[in-house]
Amino acid sequence: MILQGKRTWVFPKPPVIIATGTVVGPDEGEGPLSSDFDLVHPDLEIGQPSWEKSERVLLEQASDIALQHAKLSKDKLSFFVGGDLMNQIISNTFAARTLGAPYLGVFGACSTSMESLAIASLIVSSGAGEYAMAGTCSHNCTVEKQFRYPTEYGSQKPPTAQYTVTGAGASIIASEGEGPIITAATIGKIMDLGIKDPFNMGAAMAPAAVDTIQGHLQDTGREPGYYDLIVTGDLAGVGHPIATEMLQRNGVPMDQTKFQDCGLMIYDVQKQKVQAGGSGCACSAVVTYGHLLKRIHKGELNRILVVATGALLSPLSYQQGESIPCVAHAVAIEAPNTEKQRGAEL
Amino acid sequence: MILQGKRTWVFPKPPVIIATGTVVGPDEGEGPLSSDFDLVHPDLEIGQPSWEKSERVLLEQASDIALQHAKLSKDKLSFFVGGDLMNQIISNTFAARTLGAPYLGVFGACSTSMESLAIASLIVSSGAGEYAMAGTCSHNCTVEKQFRYPTEYGSQKPPTAQYTVTGAGASIIASEGEGPIITAATIGKIMDLGIKDPFNMGAAMAPAAVDTIQGHLQDTGREPGYYDLIVTGDLAGVGHPIATEMLQRNGVPMDQTKFQDCGLMIYDVQKQKVQAGGSGCACSAVVTYGHLLKRIHKGELNRILVVATGALLSPLSYQQGESIPCVAHAVAIEAPNTEKQRGAEL
Repeated sequence: MILQGKRTWVFPKPPVIIATGTVVGPDEGEGPLSSDFDLVHPDLEIGQPSWEKSERVLLEQASDIALQHAKLSKDKLSFFVGGDLMNQIISNTFAARTLGAPYLGVFGACSTSMESLAIASLIVSSGAGEYAMAGTCSHNCTVEKQFRYPTEYGSQKPPTAQYTVTGAGASIIASEGEGPIITAATIGKIMDLGIKDPFNMGAAMAPAAVDTIQGHLQDTGREPGYYDLIVTGDLAGVGHPIATEMLQRNGVPMDQTKFQDCGLMIYDVQKQKVQAGGSGCACSAVVTYGHLLKRIHKGELNRILVVATGALLSPLSYQQGESIPCVAHAVAIEAPNTEKQRGAEL
Repeated sequence: MILQGKRTWVFPKPPVIIATGTVVGPDEGEGPLSSDFDLVHPDLEIGQPSWEKSERVLLEQASDIALQHAKLSKDKLSFFVGGDLMNQIISNTFAARTLGAPYLGVFGACSTSMESLAIASLIVSSGAGEYAMAGTCSHNCTVEKQFRYPTEYGSQKPPTAQYTVTGAGASIIASEGEGPIITAATIGKIMDLGIKDPFNMGAAMAPAAVDTIQGHLQDTGREPGYYDLIVTGDLAGVGHPIATEMLQRNGVPMDQTKFQDCGLMIYDVQKQKVQAGGSGCACSAVVTYGHLLKRIHKGELNRILVVATGALLSPLSYQQGESIPCVAHAVAIEAPNTEKQRGAEL
């Protein structure tokens, strides 16, 4: 039985992340994690005639880089699992057309990074696929245009707003090989405490992150200290402190050096004009696949839990006065030797 | 190994569809399959102030009916897997909020019915969940408004256009219990032969259906005659003959009584004003969960292959001159005794 507790998959034979590819735009290239990404574009256009085509190219490039790193031709991919923020997830669909692999489209807004990784892990772990790719992307200008106002309008934003990451992250999962392993995944429930402000998504998403973290710890019987780092996806400057406080109140105090947020890590929030911090499907994807896995490789981290958060609103649901339903999906990634040590300890 | 061939999951211990729920609108209630649906609404409003809220209620009702049929409380659901045509799949997200179950949002346009059923089957079959619900929905007025023109405009349509089914279908999958079993699922690739006309989606989707049917037969080593019925999702009056001809040319001739289309079955296409026939996420969902499973129960069918087809365009991709990428996912459903017989034969 892979299911442990109520909603956590614990993989008896943990699948391996054999390769990743990360591509970002200029703002992410000016941020503190710049050197961890495989490709940094100097402009947002990326040589394309529309923002949507630029976003698609980001994902196509990230997929290509991941395949190159894995020394795998694209016809070897059993499945591609991916989604994005665009209506009808067109960026992933068009990238899947280029890739030619059997395709499972998913949608979890900015939690798509870990939703796709969890499903890809289940596929490989259960023997339903040999190599599965998980991928997602976002582009600042496509998201602003679709969810708020075209950036060309120059509209102002409150400091609670977040800045959508331009980028794409792809990972290739296999049952064997070298790389960090995926030991568990916890699937989120929809949490909605009634927040309706799309310029304050961090606050809307915080309860979903808290619920999934607590669900994960409960299901696995683990303490927060089991992990060297627990990162939320994109709660940023407003949402992350709320999540911290909620966890504290619920009797799950977090060590502040070991509880961080990808949306706060990807930019220099003090210097860059990114309001409360980063967001977007690519945010947790590029921070995890680029930065965090490199830290695992270097031995700086052994066990991490990535809790990608998603605000599942649509412009229409917002206009109709609905509150913002949110979700968070968590994936536990560990250094390969950690698992062996754990096996030896048992 | 669950993977057989390139992209087909063959479940060693086939999961069981222990219950379903189907809800439809007035046009479907006037169609030939009316008596097979659990609930028929006499109007499109369903007591709601917006079409989007009406669509959500359809899915909430279908989920409730499925749970009642399974004699299961909603907290027993391990996972809910679902998606729809709305931007950011809001109908499913809000229904998942009501349901309270861990939620995996998926998107495959009208192929979502079988994409969600395939993933739910993998979850249950691999021991990653005890009870998984697959659900999807569509509403004629939400889809017309989002993809074409609000119905209130009264715009005309060419005869190649299709009529979106108002309805919702949900199924509950378990590792044990009474009901039809899911023996295999084949995941589709993106097929795009360059068709750009959103009023002719049947023609756009036909190659995807053909590719998945051939992929399924190749992977499983089965002949079309293995199935009592192969149904496509919503190719309708234009697409289904194209698929038939393509299969014939590719050396896979289909027996016309055993190769049908949900979009042609749900309406009386000659009498009802539905252009080429039905479409929408709910089309293959309610025909499969309502009509076809009842025929399996009655012993009229033993083995069926449902090939749900999806046109993955967005209004924006269409406006930007892109062609329509399409996909088809197939799920093989069999009467429980057939599987036992097959076991005995081996």
